[in-house]
Amino acid sequence: MNNTSTLRDYITEEAKNVEAALQEALPGEWQVPAQLRESMQYSLMAGGKRLRPILVLAAAEALGGPREAALPVACAIEMIHTYSLIHDDLPAMDNDDYRRGKLTNHKVFGEAMAILAGDALLTHAFYSIAQARKVYGIAADRVLAITEELSEYAGARGMVGGQAADMLGEQGITKLEELEYIHTHKTSDLIIFSLRAGGHIAGASEEQMNALSQFGLCIGLAFQIQDDILDLVGDEAKLGKPVKSDEKQQKVTYPFFIGIEASEKKVKQLTDEGKQALLAAKLPNPDRLLQLADYLMQRDH
Amino acid sequence: MNNTSTLRDYITEEAKNVEAALQEALPGEWQVPAQLRESMQYSLMAGGKRLRPILVLAAAEALGGPREAALPVACAIEMIHTYSLIHDDLPAMDNDDYRRGKLTNHKVFGEAMAILAGDALLTHAFYSIAQARKVYGIAADRVLAITEELSEYAGARGMVGGQAADMLGEQGITKLEELEYIHTHKTSDLIIFSLRAGGHIAGASEEQMNALSQFGLCIGLAFQIQDDILDLVGDEAKLGKPVKSDEKQQKVTYPFFIGIEASEKKVKQLTDEGKQALLAAKLPNPDRLLQLADYLMQRDH
Repeated sequence: MNNTSTLRDYITEEAKNVEAALQEALPGEWQVPAQLRESMQYSLMAGGKRLRPILVLAAAEALGGPREAALPVACAIEMIHTYSLIHDDLPAMDNDDYRRGKLTNHKVFGEAMAILAGDALLTHAFYSIAQARKVYGIAADRVLAITEELSEYAGARGMVGGQAADMLGEQGITKLEELEYIHTHKTSDLIIFSLRAGGHIAGASEEQMNALSQFGLCIGLAFQIQDDILDLVGDEAKLGKPVKSDEKQQKVTYPFFIGIEASEKKVKQLTDEGKQALLAAKLPNPDRLLQLADYLMQRDH
Repeated sequence: MNNTSTLRDYITEEAKNVEAALQEALPGEWQVPAQLRESMQYSLMAGGKRLRPILVLAAAEALGGPREAALPVACAIEMIHTYSLIHDDLPAMDNDDYRRGKLTNHKVFGEAMAILAGDALLTHAFYSIAQARKVYGIAADRVLAITEELSEYAGARGMVGGQAADMLGEQGITKLEELEYIHTHKTSDLIIFSLRAGGHIAGASEEQMNALSQFGLCIGLAFQIQDDILDLVGDEAKLGKPVKSDEKQQKVTYPFFIGIEASEKKVKQLTDEGKQALLAAKLPNPDRLLQLADYLMQRDH
């Protein structure tokens, strides 16, 4: 069996499932100003790897849990990821005109609407999570734990904290630990959340949850270092953005501190460490998660 | 008994309780970039009437429910209100330099940090709600209902939808119904949520919840019309902002459509209607809520 091509099919299939669910995520009968709805959907449906929602589904599957019931949470994490990109692209933040080859939200809908669309997507993520209880009957305490963890991993000491540190540190990062703080919170936190959320849906034990967290921490950091590497040496056509853009913006990256070769080694080492942590917990069906870890390490965009 | 002065004491006392809880709301041991924390706290502790959190507490009290357990939810709604003000004041939105006599968040911390502080406060509101379960043992299904309702009343078809409609309609509102849509969602929705959240904490029946919603819808709209009136004829010193600022910005207000006198009548009529709806539900202790409705109608700032 060709594991890689099977994994590609799996990713394509699950990304489609997630996109179908995202299409339905903002109820059509809700009275929402048309431009706000369009602005939210423009960015939500703008493609992307759908990595975080797929991790939610794969984690639920790894524990033999109900995959279907994980879909609302999968949608929620994509809403959070999307809102963070919309706000990140704003003139006051990174001031980007394009993302994935498409105009950024504020270039199409204006800054005010982009701010509001981001706010609305962030808020709507919590609505989506609540549907895991309402539609699929997942235990209320588990669903509540997911909302609480989302507010932690995506909030001031999670993703937003990482963004703030990134912004504040743009000129003056001098230590690798500072960069790791930013990478951990900007990137790993949502990945850890995604895995744990899938675990909650499937009723994971505390030991299993810890393994999912450790796995997420490792592959999240590996993912971000790989991003830094691709930004220096990747293929512009595949990436959909100019390479060396970080370098031009004088953004401090992982290779800046330890070089490209050592960074590549670090990606491999973190991936292995994450996989070991997962294997040690002896989940019923860990294969997809293990394959995803390898896929992230080997990706070229 | 002098009801008015007693109510003033009550409001002062509860505002203090809310502020003490807000001070503690972002755990000190959480690793948060210092400037992000300061920016969040600057706006959260910038004063204001604390009306929405007091309505949460008063609604719980009206049903004879546990007041203490309502505090985390009271804090949550103030975080939502605060984030909406921070984002509203941004240059891309209303572009305000001052609020309540203090520099707006982005004037002190910069636009990027103001956007992030708003995002973090919005996210943190859901963390705070979860504490009603974790710390005070409120039933998980009730607490989950509160998070779901917050995401509805504060989201795309609630407050954010109202903001978007307000922004889109700035030049072209020609019908009173359009203005009422904006007022309902920009203002009433968070007030309805506050009352319902207090109801959930106290284990209200569906009939009681409906009465709280109806009460909130009426006093919310009355509150906003009163705001429009005060903006035209209020005392600048008491309001802390120039009067006729809406008129100068050519903002369409309620008196614009039906005149000041009819607007004042409408405030009174809505307040009575709200009080009737509440009285009909025969809550155990409705007095504070009834007094608050009168207070909002009579306020001069």
